[in-house]
Amino acid sequence: MTPVSASEADALDDKDPLARYKTLFDLPDWIIYLDGNSLGPPPKAALARIQSTGEAEWRSGLVKSWNDAGWIDLPKTCGAKIARLIGGREDEVIIADSVSVNIFKLAAALSANAPGAIAYHADEFPTDGYILQGLSNLTGAPLMRLAPDADHGALGSEISVLVKSAVHYKTAAVADIAAWEQAAAQNHVEIIWDLSHATGVLDIDMRAAGARYGVGCGYKYLNGGPGAPAFVYVGRQAAATLNQPLSGWMGHAAPFEFAPDYAPAPGVERFASGTPPILSLSARDAALDVFADIDIAAIEAKAKMLGDLFLARCAPLGLESISPPPSERRGGHVSVRFDHGYAVIQALIAHGVIGDFRQPDIMRFGFSPLFLGYRDVWNAASILADILETQKWREAKYSARRKVT
Amino acid sequence: MTPVSASEADALDDKDPLARYKTLFDLPDWIIYLDGNSLGPPPKAALARIQSTGEAEWRSGLVKSWNDAGWIDLPKTCGAKIARLIGGREDEVIIADSVSVNIFKLAAALSANAPGAIAYHADEFPTDGYILQGLSNLTGAPLMRLAPDADHGALGSEISVLVKSAVHYKTAAVADIAAWEQAAAQNHVEIIWDLSHATGVLDIDMRAAGARYGVGCGYKYLNGGPGAPAFVYVGRQAAATLNQPLSGWMGHAAPFEFAPDYAPAPGVERFASGTPPILSLSARDAALDVFADIDIAAIEAKAKMLGDLFLARCAPLGLESISPPPSERRGGHVSVRFDHGYAVIQALIAHGVIGDFRQPDIMRFGFSPLFLGYRDVWNAASILADILETQKWREAKYSARRKVT
Repeated sequence: MTPVSASEADALDDKDPLARYKTLFDLPDWIIYLDGNSLGPPPKAALARIQSTGEAEWRSGLVKSWNDAGWIDLPKTCGAKIARLIGGREDEVIIADSVSVNIFKLAAALSANAPGAIAYHADEFPTDGYILQGLSNLTGAPLMRLAPDADHGALGSEISVLVKSAVHYKTAAVADIAAWEQAAAQNHVEIIWDLSHATGVLDIDMRAAGARYGVGCGYKYLNGGPGAPAFVYVGRQAAATLNQPLSGWMGHAAPFEFAPDYAPAPGVERFASGTPPILSLSARDAALDVFADIDIAAIEAKAKMLGDLFLARCAPLGLESISPPPSERRGGHVSVRFDHGYAVIQALIAHGVIGDFRQPDIMRFGFSPLFLGYRDVWNAASILADILETQKWREAKYSARRKVT
Repeated sequence: MTPVSASEADALDDKDPLARYKTLFDLPDWIIYLDGNSLGPPPKAALARIQSTGEAEWRSGLVKSWNDAGWIDLPKTCGAKIARLIGGREDEVIIADSVSVNIFKLAAALSANAPGAIAYHADEFPTDGYILQGLSNLTGAPLMRLAPDADHGALGSEISVLVKSAVHYKTAAVADIAAWEQAAAQNHVEIIWDLSHATGVLDIDMRAAGARYGVGCGYKYLNGGPGAPAFVYVGRQAAATLNQPLSGWMGHAAPFEFAPDYAPAPGVERFASGTPPILSLSARDAALDVFADIDIAAIEAKAKMLGDLFLARCAPLGLESISPPPSERRGGHVSVRFDHGYAVIQALIAHGVIGDFRQPDIMRFGFSPLFLGYRDVWNAASILADILETQKWREAKYSARRKVT
């Protein structure tokens, strides 16, 4: 039940089995952080790991740490930790590069020799489309932009590859992966799932859904640090045969043999390319330990409850939600429209509530269940209500625009 | 003059204007580190920066640090610091991805619509060739492997793009960039310079040499940390027109407008792709400050002297050098051959001297002049001499093979 008072929110916190995870983080206590869907805060273990990677591994171990500290294996060990969060096998996920670069690898590999177009929805996260435009310009593969509301009935023989987010970055609408995959199989389409806004907050089972290709970032709900390297998921069978064009030495079957010809590693490791950024990767690895043995279904359920609570309090404020209603499945964030959204977000930040703004009038709030409680979200909504009711956002200091990430 | 005694080495250290840089590093004092050409040690400022990026920026500043801590500008600010080390303009260098991925970007952009082959030397650093093989498989661009000793006379109309290291990773032979560029211009060939083993130790002037394209890593002589993100150099005029296919949002003219179509940033920023790994990038940025106002010609001269000293002491030990002799220009490392090189390198490590081994019989030693003195190198050579003269390397613990990076 969505709480309708502060004390009901407190009561939910009291019996919340995920509440104990908050102690693994160390958020400044003047902040209610509703932007973990953009950049997750650091788990304490990640901060400690950054320091030990610097001091003990880089400084003292020097080049030997590639072996002695396991740097060389991090893309795989870290990938295995992600696998269980998305329903993949341990050897089906590897960390490499960025989401953008990984989409290129997969889309290039899957569209080579395929007759049809590479498709994506017109309202897909921009970099996904940009990358496909670059690939299409390079190889001549035709590109197809689907209408935002096109469902899996749009899949047909003119499409070979589809890139699609499992959770929409603006609305948090959730795609029915299994239904899409069923339609894709019937139409010989391969789907590359962008799991950036899903991993760590949504209960996903890629294998059960018949999904074989995915990418995702590490810095949102996984709290892996700013720009943390991304992951690639490729089903075991496909990984053994697919050739990706960014065939750098880290994806070679024997990188340190220095053989003249590229020979891909047997499995998903072939999706690695150059030398990975170890400081960022180490922090990401430590951050993933927060998820060891966690019940991902419980995370999704709590994120939903927090979002429902927030939306319920937004409704009387005149904010129009563009996110799925309480009756539907939803990712970990909600978005509401308001003409002066930018100024409101600035005013919220000044009052300790951090959300983000997306063009042209979207206020987006994320509900990472591991460090947020029901009372936190209740309080954030109270601050938002106050800002709107007193029109505090009209103060000039809040409406002055500057670069927004 | 190459010193011929420990006291002469001491005398050179006493009057070395670069000696003071050693205090900027914090190497374990039981180690003589001759592997800065593989992984540079951390400048103290880089270790401090890792911690402040974690604690002050990520933990306290959270998502606001993209603007407030300048994360979003790091690829450019950091690129500008590299520009002066390679003779580029400040706006001609950007940090992005890895060397492998950056070679792909440049080679793809330059070979699109070009009639001739993409060429590289058969003994080029392996990942450079692997990447070109992947590109050729994707686009059908013909590939040409040049003989190891092919000089710029090999450039002709059948070649459109050449990827070439400025300093050879095994031998440390130095390419005459200006001479290659002159021949390239006559034959309508574009050269992509791999500056990985050159940047920070060789006095390079890309513009003066007429070189317009380069890539390089950050973790060797620049001491940017394990797997530190790489850089791309593109001459101003070329940067304004070249289209690279990994067109991710960070290379967009207005990344946060979330426009549906990709529009490249005006200059070299278009070579950025996905979100950069900030923890690694911050360390790399701090490490570059060591080079502020440094005399790069003095670095090259000292590296040469250190290498000459080492080679002079290797000669009577029966080790065959495959590196340029003292009379020729050379990169910052030297390589010598020895049948049991692997065991010798292991024995050296056990005695505090760290070098590396490359198949099949190469012992490679790097001489980063910022933290190594003449006496350090003298002492390392003495330890090597002892290991060879007493055949200490024959002990079983040194010859047992394991994975080597």
